[in-house]
Amino acid sequence: MPQTQSASHEHATGQLAPVGVGLLGCGTVGLGVAKLLLSHADDYQHRIGRPLRLRRVAVRDASKARGLDPAHFTLNPEEVVSDPETHIVVEVMGGVEPARTLILQAIAHGKHVVTANKEVIARHGEEIFSAARAQGVAVFIEGTVGGGIPIIMPIKASLAGNRITQIAGIVNGTTNYILTAMTQKGEGLDTALAEAQRLGYAEANPAADVEAYDATFKMAILASTIFSHRVRVEDVYREGITHLTAADIRYARELGYVIKLLGVARHTDGQMQVRVHPAFVPKSHPLAHVNGVSNAIAVQGDAVGEVMFQGPGAGQFPTASAVMGDVLNIASDLQHANRLMGCLHTGHAAVGSIDDLFTQFYVRLLAKDEPGVIAALGNAFARHGISILSLVQKGEQDGLAEIVLVTHTARERAMRQALADLADHPTIQSIASVIRVEGLTA
Amino acid sequence: MPQTQSASHEHATGQLAPVGVGLLGCGTVGLGVAKLLLSHADDYQHRIGRPLRLRRVAVRDASKARGLDPAHFTLNPEEVVSDPETHIVVEVMGGVEPARTLILQAIAHGKHVVTANKEVIARHGEEIFSAARAQGVAVFIEGTVGGGIPIIMPIKASLAGNRITQIAGIVNGTTNYILTAMTQKGEGLDTALAEAQRLGYAEANPAADVEAYDATFKMAILASTIFSHRVRVEDVYREGITHLTAADIRYARELGYVIKLLGVARHTDGQMQVRVHPAFVPKSHPLAHVNGVSNAIAVQGDAVGEVMFQGPGAGQFPTASAVMGDVLNIASDLQHANRLMGCLHTGHAAVGSIDDLFTQFYVRLLAKDEPGVIAALGNAFARHGISILSLVQKGEQDGLAEIVLVTHTARERAMRQALADLADHPTIQSIASVIRVEGLTA
Repeated sequence: MPQTQSASHEHATGQLAPVGVGLLGCGTVGLGVAKLLLSHADDYQHRIGRPLRLRRVAVRDASKARGLDPAHFTLNPEEVVSDPETHIVVEVMGGVEPARTLILQAIAHGKHVVTANKEVIARHGEEIFSAARAQGVAVFIEGTVGGGIPIIMPIKASLAGNRITQIAGIVNGTTNYILTAMTQKGEGLDTALAEAQRLGYAEANPAADVEAYDATFKMAILASTIFSHRVRVEDVYREGITHLTAADIRYARELGYVIKLLGVARHTDGQMQVRVHPAFVPKSHPLAHVNGVSNAIAVQGDAVGEVMFQGPGAGQFPTASAVMGDVLNIASDLQHANRLMGCLHTGHAAVGSIDDLFTQFYVRLLAKDEPGVIAALGNAFARHGISILSLVQKGEQDGLAEIVLVTHTARERAMRQALADLADHPTIQSIASVIRVEGLTA
Repeated sequence: MPQTQSASHEHATGQLAPVGVGLLGCGTVGLGVAKLLLSHADDYQHRIGRPLRLRRVAVRDASKARGLDPAHFTLNPEEVVSDPETHIVVEVMGGVEPARTLILQAIAHGKHVVTANKEVIARHGEEIFSAARAQGVAVFIEGTVGGGIPIIMPIKASLAGNRITQIAGIVNGTTNYILTAMTQKGEGLDTALAEAQRLGYAEANPAADVEAYDATFKMAILASTIFSHRVRVEDVYREGITHLTAADIRYARELGYVIKLLGVARHTDGQMQVRVHPAFVPKSHPLAHVNGVSNAIAVQGDAVGEVMFQGPGAGQFPTASAVMGDVLNIASDLQHANRLMGCLHTGHAAVGSIDDLFTQFYVRLLAKDEPGVIAALGNAFARHGISILSLVQKGEQDGLAEIVLVTHTARERAMRQALADLADHPTIQSIASVIRVEGLTA
């Protein structure tokens, strides 16, 4: 039986025994959680009706100055997951191992688990949630997506009356900062990335962000949340922002759009699709106005229509806020925490291929400035059943014309074939950009 | 003991008995709730592990065609609140009576209550929550504020790790539609209001919206939620939009702002303030981009920073979505529903007077176009310790100059005194507008 039952024993005074919280990791987010536990102890006790106590904290270097009583620290994370006075284990180490093994050990010891680790949940959520269900404990993951923005719980609880048909979101703050700088200041990608690195928004090796691995983990988690089927990371279509140019950003604006790195999970007519890629977002949509490192997630439900959640997508205290929300919700009803927002996954989601996506496309290409170019374009698209919504020649240099066109809705597979045809055509010098245009309706 | 215990009895088959839902009222929202219960029955059963059944529906006219089985209808609402097979009573009648009495009767019968009735909760929340606590049942109110936008539960659950310092929101869709039309189309108030009435967004008697009574109820509820003290409706400062002109809207834009009807509840340094009035909102703030009938609520917490929730603030299915979220959360753990998001009010909030507000002000006035006007203005403000940030003469007609100025932060009481002095000054013809400028930082 879970050891959490020990917390139900009342003291002789009639006061409920403290709820113990252990920490796996004490980096940026972990230290934020520890500081909140200490600074807000009175508030939290008032909220849950019993004290909430920081117990052991597993670290790699116990001598590092953190401003916490060193008595909390241990170099042995197994002390955290097996401590009899710990009821909730918070995992904020990041990465797959040893996080996965320690989470499973905590569950085996009957601990509830709260984690902000998107990679371990995206890759091993099935194993972790199955173990938790078998053991009768809760695994809460609010901090894995959207930093401090409440999103997992609002979807599972507040919006439970809906069939969720779509989630579209800006779930990576680093790339949104870069795209905002490119949009507002006209900067190129390299300049904007360097600035993001200088400000600490981007890592020295920015691949996790700019190649959209981070966003892919988050969309796998969100899609799993709304589909009630588990979505594998490898089933999420992924395309980063490294190929975007200042010209595309400028033409997007002229056409009434803003380019965002968008994660989309859509479930309509029995089809599930999950993808992360740069997209044209209409200026009239609230997502177009989400700038800088902010994240925002727009959720469409069949009853509610569309609701959007916006805020800080990362950072020490925002993410600690999400973690503490989970901790307090578990602690407020420790005996029944596993019933809150139970996971109802029934197998793996059959996610559709990106080839079957229907969407509009923006295409920028360089062509020889001679008669017959427009006809060649029209023929190549028409051959694959794609019609052109607008086509503009933007400029000319060295005998080459820059042409920007937007298609009507077309199937991705047909588009790829049309582009392959065009690439072979003698009048077409190069296809410079292809970016999906999101209407953002489900 | 609450009769809800009957739902824990298992059938001989091992399946849990249905959870019964009764409806008080079957107008727009009530019918939406009934339709969701019927159309989503399978989903809901999957979510809560037992069937969710629509029971009695109290109506005033049982013969009206609603598309529901007439066997549900009763003219006697006491049948709804006393039905032994009903565990959750949904009150969607609106207004104070008989809603208040019926809610209290439902509680006395051991029913959990879900309501979307902002007026009865704003005016009688204390009595209702006290009765519920004594009886050990839940009263959930997500639908009272922000229509389908999840806000009450995210604040109480997801953001529980924070001290909430401020809520600033657009909580009335009708006035936001009107202000958006005035801003985007340059319409006057009367034209925009007439259009809102034609589209069904505004009532024939628009006072509840344009005089901000509706927003005041909602801010009393939101403030009570974040302060953990009950805020009386009469303690909320209220100012509608009827005095706004197209000129003010235009000057706001020139100054980098958008005028919104804003509800603000702020809790800093032990001071609580709650107010609803038109405000200059900086274009850089996400609230400035919330247009049409949408609502949006920005919440500031000491850990999370600012998160914003945006979506449809009214309507049949959006509000029914909020109601059904509450119903499902209660139904998923009927025996312990009263523990979810318990109300922790400790008495009434000591809400500060608007006189003590510190804010910037926009002032538009008409003055004689003669030397000494600027000096008179400067003196009047300086006498009360108010300094002027910017001052522009916008135009001139009939020998009168239109002057627009924005002050530095000043105390409201001092501002009123300065304006009284100015009104008496011989060179000042009239003070046409005074609108608060919101920095939107706590």
